[in-house]
Amino acid sequence: MTPLFGSLAVVGPGLIGSSILRRARETGTLAETLIAADLDPRVLERVNELGIADVTTRDLETAAQADCVMICVPVGAVEYVGKQLLPYMKPGSVLTDVASVRGQLGPRLAAVLPKGVSYVPSHPMAGTEHSGPDAGFSTLFEDRWALLVPPEGSDPHAITLIEELWVRCGARTKILTDDEHDRICAMVSHLPHLLAFTICDTADNLSEEIRAAVLDYAASGFRDFTRIAASDPVMWRDIFIANREALLQTLESFITDTQVMADAIRRGDETAITSRIERGRAIRRTLIENRQA
Amino acid sequence: MTPLFGSLAVVGPGLIGSSILRRARETGTLAETLIAADLDPRVLERVNELGIADVTTRDLETAAQADCVMICVPVGAVEYVGKQLLPYMKPGSVLTDVASVRGQLGPRLAAVLPKGVSYVPSHPMAGTEHSGPDAGFSTLFEDRWALLVPPEGSDPHAITLIEELWVRCGARTKILTDDEHDRICAMVSHLPHLLAFTICDTADNLSEEIRAAVLDYAASGFRDFTRIAASDPVMWRDIFIANREALLQTLESFITDTQVMADAIRRGDETAITSRIERGRAIRRTLIENRQA
Repeated sequence: MTPLFGSLAVVGPGLIGSSILRRARETGTLAETLIAADLDPRVLERVNELGIADVTTRDLETAAQADCVMICVPVGAVEYVGKQLLPYMKPGSVLTDVASVRGQLGPRLAAVLPKGVSYVPSHPMAGTEHSGPDAGFSTLFEDRWALLVPPEGSDPHAITLIEELWVRCGARTKILTDDEHDRICAMVSHLPHLLAFTICDTADNLSEEIRAAVLDYAASGFRDFTRIAASDPVMWRDIFIANREALLQTLESFITDTQVMADAIRRGDETAITSRIERGRAIRRTLIENRQA
Repeated sequence: MTPLFGSLAVVGPGLIGSSILRRARETGTLAETLIAADLDPRVLERVNELGIADVTTRDLETAAQADCVMICVPVGAVEYVGKQLLPYMKPGSVLTDVASVRGQLGPRLAAVLPKGVSYVPSHPMAGTEHSGPDAGFSTLFEDRWALLVPPEGSDPHAITLIEELWVRCGARTKILTDDEHDRICAMVSHLPHLLAFTICDTADNLSEEIRAAVLDYAASGFRDFTRIAASDPVMWRDIFIANREALLQTLESFITDTQVMADAIRRGDETAITSRIERGRAIRRTLIENRQA
């Protein structure tokens, strides 16, 4: 299989970026030359030790010369980095990013595109609670979704290239609008993380004695929540702020639903409680059928 | 190692009960004779096929003849089953149960103890989302806690026997009061389950289109919540009602904490958001040190 691009630059080789590089290295089908760019020299040193890039650089201008440039930095920094890269990108090249909140990011970068350069942002729905170049692995995207959110008027050929890039990473692709994307992610990802962080907080606010006991006896339930609460704080802070509107709206629905459940428990309404629990089971079964569980 | 009891009867060989029987069978250190009792003949047939009991019976009177009788039925049925068993139990024997909510259960059964019979209730903090005799496995309790909640005035020798039973199942033991037990479990187990069921509900209430998308894109976050939401509805309904006071109080603290987080996100207060997320990470690290993660 011919490589998709002559050169591919990953700006920010963390969990996502280094997984792309590993995949590219292992399969040889993404690009002939792999470039990793980062402002932190320790990250680049690690990338060199891992042997997952041909070129490492702190210079964004060098990265911008690639046929495909992927911005894999935290969501709050994507616009800034994109605006640094775009003036140096060459006609016929494609810019993409992996930001997990879209907001006005797409239209804003699309507004400053040089002639002949395409921008096809995407969001791979995959991750772990770990971060940094050591956290990546080449199968991270397998059977996961990569959501493409091309701004209006995007070049269809560039869209096809970015779709194919994700398919070669093992992912399935879907094209969404920014707004659809953000509402869906508030529900499937941002709210669960907010709740996970908060439940740790609630445990932390208990009396010293009960708090110690909670840590001892976390067996089933609590520890499943804390797994996702171990995620990177800066990344999640940025996501929460970037998607605040959709997130706070989803949280409000959730609190209303919680109060309905609390009322049912308070009155001892067995039928109401069971029917709500049954819905959880039904959704779980659908997830298993959809290979997402 | 000499078996702890001459005979051990498990009433309700589901996930917990059949795990005890498997452990007893594999190690030979719990009892010489294993008895499984259940009202459902299909459950007993399955226990026979699995070969994890010497005697299976639908008759509680037969089970009550054992040196140690463990009630492993759902929490809502423990008092009823206990009152059926106790009149037939012999002097020197010990009754225990594995109910995950204590409430007034201990004092109520202690009030009707025949002379010479001891009652040392316990709660193993272990489980999966599966149920029934096929769901059990002999290592379920390894490195988990078994919480003992002996009623006031319990025979110290009987307490030692039940502690030793759990130690031989691989568990660590701790003695708590009923009230401590229920407040701790509301936090570590019942609240997480309530939230997991409710988030499925919130997803289910979305517009048809977004709902379908949520199921497609459940990658990280949502699916971790749904794993625990797949648990047995009747069991959880009973737990929620039995522990409603401690649970609703814990839920109230949680909703308050959620609103504090929501306010921080609304104002874009980066420091407040990050410090709350950091607490989650700290708790996660403690859990790992305590071997509960």
